[in-house]
Amino acid sequence: MPVSTIIEKRPPRSLKSRLTRTGTSLMRQGFLNMIVAFAVFCALTAGVPIAPTFVLGPSPACAEEGMWTLNKLDKAPADKWQANGFELDIKELYNPKGPSLSDAIVQIGGGTGSFVSPNGLILTNHHVAFGALQRQSSVEINFIEDGFLARAHADEIPALGYTTRVLLDIKDVTKDVMKGVKDKMSDKERYDKLEANTKKIVKKAEDGKDIEASVASFYGGSDYYLYTYFKIKDIRIVYAPPASIGVYGGDIDNWMWPRHTGDFSFFRAYVAPDGSSAEFADENVPYQPKKHLAFSVAPLQEGDFTMVMGYPASTRRYRASYSIDYHVNSYYPNAIERYRDLLDILEEEAGLNPEAAIKNASMIQGLNNGYKNNIGMLEGLKKANLLQTKLDEEKALKDFMASDEKMQKKYGDVLDGIGAQYETYVQFAQLNSIAGWMGYVSSGLRSAYTVYKWGKEHEKKNDLDRDPGYQDRDMPRVKRGLELADLRYDEQTDKRTLKYFMLKSLECPEGQRIRAIEPVIAGLPEQEIEPALAAFIDKLFAGTKVTNKEERMKMFGMTKTELMKLDDPMINFAAELEVQRKELEDKTEAFAGALQKLRPKLMELRQAHQGKLLYPDANGTMRFSAGEVKGYAPADAVTYNFQTRLKGGIEKETGEDPFIVPEVLKDLHKAKDFGRYADKKLGDVPVCLLTTNDSTGGNSGSPILNGKGEIIGALFDGNYEAMASDYFFIPELTRAIHVDSRYILFIVDKFAGATELMNELTIHGGGSL
Amino acid sequence: MPVSTIIEKRPPRSLKSRLTRTGTSLMRQGFLNMIVAFAVFCALTAGVPIAPTFVLGPSPACAEEGMWTLNKLDKAPADKWQANGFELDIKELYNPKGPSLSDAIVQIGGGTGSFVSPNGLILTNHHVAFGALQRQSSVEINFIEDGFLARAHADEIPALGYTTRVLLDIKDVTKDVMKGVKDKMSDKERYDKLEANTKKIVKKAEDGKDIEASVASFYGGSDYYLYTYFKIKDIRIVYAPPASIGVYGGDIDNWMWPRHTGDFSFFRAYVAPDGSSAEFADENVPYQPKKHLAFSVAPLQEGDFTMVMGYPASTRRYRASYSIDYHVNSYYPNAIERYRDLLDILEEEAGLNPEAAIKNASMIQGLNNGYKNNIGMLEGLKKANLLQTKLDEEKALKDFMASDEKMQKKYGDVLDGIGAQYETYVQFAQLNSIAGWMGYVSSGLRSAYTVYKWGKEHEKKNDLDRDPGYQDRDMPRVKRGLELADLRYDEQTDKRTLKYFMLKSLECPEGQRIRAIEPVIAGLPEQEIEPALAAFIDKLFAGTKVTNKEERMKMFGMTKTELMKLDDPMINFAAELEVQRKELEDKTEAFAGALQKLRPKLMELRQAHQGKLLYPDANGTMRFSAGEVKGYAPADAVTYNFQTRLKGGIEKETGEDPFIVPEVLKDLHKAKDFGRYADKKLGDVPVCLLTTNDSTGGNSGSPILNGKGEIIGALFDGNYEAMASDYFFIPELTRAIHVDSRYILFIVDKFAGATELMNELTIHGGGSL
Repeated sequence: MPVSTIIEKRPPRSLKSRLTRTGTSLMRQGFLNMIVAFAVFCALTAGVPIAPTFVLGPSPACAEEGMWTLNKLDKAPADKWQANGFELDIKELYNPKGPSLSDAIVQIGGGTGSFVSPNGLILTNHHVAFGALQRQSSVEINFIEDGFLARAHADEIPALGYTTRVLLDIKDVTKDVMKGVKDKMSDKERYDKLEANTKKIVKKAEDGKDIEASVASFYGGSDYYLYTYFKIKDIRIVYAPPASIGVYGGDIDNWMWPRHTGDFSFFRAYVAPDGSSAEFADENVPYQPKKHLAFSVAPLQEGDFTMVMGYPASTRRYRASYSIDYHVNSYYPNAIERYRDLLDILEEEAGLNPEAAIKNASMIQGLNNGYKNNIGMLEGLKKANLLQTKLDEEKALKDFMASDEKMQKKYGDVLDGIGAQYETYVQFAQLNSIAGWMGYVSSGLRSAYTVYKWGKEHEKKNDLDRDPGYQDRDMPRVKRGLELADLRYDEQTDKRTLKYFMLKSLECPEGQRIRAIEPVIAGLPEQEIEPALAAFIDKLFAGTKVTNKEERMKMFGMTKTELMKLDDPMINFAAELEVQRKELEDKTEAFAGALQKLRPKLMELRQAHQGKLLYPDANGTMRFSAGEVKGYAPADAVTYNFQTRLKGGIEKETGEDPFIVPEVLKDLHKAKDFGRYADKKLGDVPVCLLTTNDSTGGNSGSPILNGKGEIIGALFDGNYEAMASDYFFIPELTRAIHVDSRYILFIVDKFAGATELMNELTIHGGGSL
Repeated sequence: MPVSTIIEKRPPRSLKSRLTRTGTSLMRQGFLNMIVAFAVFCALTAGVPIAPTFVLGPSPACAEEGMWTLNKLDKAPADKWQANGFELDIKELYNPKGPSLSDAIVQIGGGTGSFVSPNGLILTNHHVAFGALQRQSSVEINFIEDGFLARAHADEIPALGYTTRVLLDIKDVTKDVMKGVKDKMSDKERYDKLEANTKKIVKKAEDGKDIEASVASFYGGSDYYLYTYFKIKDIRIVYAPPASIGVYGGDIDNWMWPRHTGDFSFFRAYVAPDGSSAEFADENVPYQPKKHLAFSVAPLQEGDFTMVMGYPASTRRYRASYSIDYHVNSYYPNAIERYRDLLDILEEEAGLNPEAAIKNASMIQGLNNGYKNNIGMLEGLKKANLLQTKLDEEKALKDFMASDEKMQKKYGDVLDGIGAQYETYVQFAQLNSIAGWMGYVSSGLRSAYTVYKWGKEHEKKNDLDRDPGYQDRDMPRVKRGLELADLRYDEQTDKRTLKYFMLKSLECPEGQRIRAIEPVIAGLPEQEIEPALAAFIDKLFAGTKVTNKEERMKMFGMTKTELMKLDDPMINFAAELEVQRKELEDKTEAFAGALQKLRPKLMELRQAHQGKLLYPDANGTMRFSAGEVKGYAPADAVTYNFQTRLKGGIEKETGEDPFIVPEVLKDLHKAKDFGRYADKKLGDVPVCLLTTNDSTGGNSGSPILNGKGEIIGALFDGNYEAMASDYFFIPELTRAIHVDSRYILFIVDKFAGATELMNELTIHGGGSL
């Protein structure tokens, strides 16, 4: 899936806390969201409302573009969808007053899932389950390699660190968020005011209730909505296919079509016997969703109507040219280098030591995904020459303003204002990024930083005064993360990555370096710098107790003052970093505060110019997107069909990972033992599927539904050719990639023989060969 | 193009001399043929006639399989071709009595070309011209990078080392070749007898005439034909596009579809004023071919009839399972390692030194091509599980024999006999291959070996007693090669490759090592071996004079005795190698002699079993193949269209070599300045084209013709998915890749503005946008 890689992009604070689950799985988009989360060194996109009355309107180019907010579906072109095969009423999609499809859609492990039985069974991706499988694996038992099946509820195992959110309500809180925000405020004051208001709203919403709340910003900051969720904390693994099915094709096929990956898994949500949310406990009972979905095994053909509901994290479709310039010429080129270098380190260590191989696995997967993503993103942006398009667009906006004095007066300084902000931003962006990566990739430093920052925030008595992500409500989640930290901690890898970033920071311009290492290297000739840093790092690790679970959990209860008394070198280092981090954060928040004022204005101007209202960028709230089953032409003389089949997967086998097909699967294919899951026309079981639905990171695991609302597959990826679709939707190229429901059921039924699981599911349609 | 990479494969001696042109270009298939040629350490495919009456018969699977010999076209299914769009009479393809299409087809630079004007103008591939362009280039003038255009005859520059052969006659000489060959002869005696007879036939045919002759073996050795050629020795370069067109896509796109490479060039053939063959001279005049071809610019569509005439070098469609086993499990895996290692060395040296970059360029191109080819070949053989197919086939042959006592008696021991031969062969194959590579890749050792071997052979008074390739007739060609040797000589590269192979030879089993280095390393502990070899090699190069052109040419005139007196270390090393080489050669020739007896029998058995006659494998003689314009489906869910267009090439541009499009070309495309070369349906100029014609290495540059015999393109590659098609033709996958005639003409006319060249061509059909 296209991931939200943009460090610059951060959801509003209340949303951010959702993404900070250091305890949850490191799945594709989750991975980078976590970087975003740790890297408080970053710019925001939240903004200030200017015109709170915007309604949804599709882009003229195609029916597929746009991820629709649920509470504005009445403004969506449902009649057009109906003409294309949508057989439901939009009230059946989302209805605060009664059960609707949205009640079956959940947020899980940084992605999306859907209830597929009355007993809390959840369908999602294998890559969403990856972290959970990894945490239950050891050198002896490898649930990633071998897969997992619980034949009875009692055999299900906890998905450590996983939670699930079920949407309860959406409420306009724009007035409350904007309370006390004044035009003459400084950028930083504006930012702080919006943050304070948001925290208050969330606190009030959650107070004394068994719910989780977050405020989402729309249109760059003109509309704010409060989303409330029922949060399920006891999630267990029910079924995951072996990696040879669930990760078939691995990083080589990642983002690619044609695809033959069975990227699905099943979880189950448990609650306390009284129905309230509870941590894992034996007496817990399966959650009873208001709504669950049926599978369809009916044949598909090009043009069939499809819809996706899920939690797309972020799109950037309305950015100004200055933002594109920054991303094309600075952000992505730097990030690509970073990914490659880190992968080299982590893979080398994994090759040297089987324990490091397990501990680094999910990070490698995440990095690989980000690496490929960033290359594709940059290639896509360059190929489409989006920078030029934006410049042309802005030229047109300027001409438009020039013809209207009132417009000129109101919006004349918006573009230049954004430009000036970026000019300031790039001056500290590089160090921002390095510090963020360093603190994320090194498990030791991450723990130390978390412990220190909590200690510091806990010296503030009033919970509301604390930084977001460090409030009482965040504590259980962060605690869980710290408890599980050792599962991904390999000392040698940690040391090498830390040293790498320290050396990288020395390449930054003067004044943009990490001050905490300056005493270590002061006055040294070049050839002595690396050994000095290595020795410094060795001391950090030799002296720290934060890498010991028991000690670490003790530290988590301490105040800053108590921590400083420990004189732990890693904690001390984190504390020193924090001083500089805070400076960078202040600058970044001022940048964000300025954009919160400017971006809604640019949006208004765009809409005035185009004479219509535009759909809002994705922001981690539930969305609906319509589309159809459709192949594409990726290049001159090449055509891609909309679906693949098992035969094609077997043909791809090389005998080497990630292209090894299980013998049982080959035998089933040879015997044509397809059950009711074959497609007559293909003469085979369909494996993966393409549709035109608009989607992005966070949509992973979303059900792809037919016009009746039945599951025809599970969304798990976007295509390489449209990787830059977070910036612009290309109707001819942008596709969502799904694992076909018939392959899911074929694997569960015929390959795994999971009769009990099959009996729980509702299946419509289908035939036989 | 699929190249003839099989070291094991060697044409009959008379043909071999054709492939030994050390002076000619290092183009794709030429490159490996030259390895074959140097590596006398190899097994042969020539054989002994059993049933001289075989006629051609198509394989049942498809109309395209089979490369037809010209003198048996009356046995070919011309009526079927006619039904598919073939508008000529087969007499118009080949007619010894009057002008026919075959008179326009020539062999040039290891590939094929065709006359396209009455003044000796030849169309062929850019990659066939590569060596010629390289030899005329320097650090200052780079004809590969910049292209070349002669606007007048006087501006044309010599294609150094290039010759062209025009077919004169084909004659059955089976009886003469078999004269004195007896059943009770030993394998080596049989081999020697066939060789001696062949030499005599060639000598007699050439004696006192301005022609070149060679004897070709068919059906593994049952039929022998004498081919006589008019050899043109003054070849000049007329036009070559810049590398950004002629090599667009480079090694990345090599063997790939979709393709956007303008892989074509034009040469001109010159003869003495009296029409006789002559070396380059100012007074020479353009050769007047009996026949030249017209271009067609008419639109193409899937299913259009197409034909190819050219010089396919070698196919291996009737090999026994033992041969396949050897190739799959030993030959290719070893060769792939060799290619990769050599490329590492040559590319590293090229990166360090701009002179080495030019000197190593054609070798790198050849190695890259061979590397990719061998990987694809091995993948193809494994994927198709050809070994199992052959085993099944042989099981069927055994069952067939078991049912017929007469058959059993006649053929019962053939398969086991071949098996026993391979068992012996693999015992020395590895060293064979290393010694062959070493003497080819190192320019210094190659020169020393050539000089020494000539000195040795020249102590034999009678020309006919000398080894083939070392007779008077070979002298001018070899001399030219020695004169040009410095153009590819980089000392540092040479030393490294020599050391690499010496070290490799130490990995061979005991008794399979290079004896000449044993004194150097005797008794040394492992860590001292490499430095000792390096020092030894340094001494070879410091002491030798063979790397000096003047000295080298003097040496070329000396006898072995005279050479030994020089006490030149490189010559001495070559002399020592020659002792071991001769032993290996004897073994290899015995192996070949045995196969010459066994393979025709296997062929007979196959035909008896299938109840029909089969077409003969390609062997470097001119062939005709029929086919049609057709795309293919390379993988599940992927379809390839049969043609590409300029837009697609421009879309591929990355701005980095090999994907840089000339600005002029982009401007022409932007302005839609397509002349008469656009395809209306595409709305663009077509660039490359796919057809189903059966082809292989040596076909490079062959014209692809429509049913009227007009040029619709120039063949330049095969597709990756069918790289193993030398072993088996796959109708669904095997395709020939051509540059479209409209792209050729568009480049010459619109891009290069080569009015004079355009005026020489005949162009039929076409329209405009």
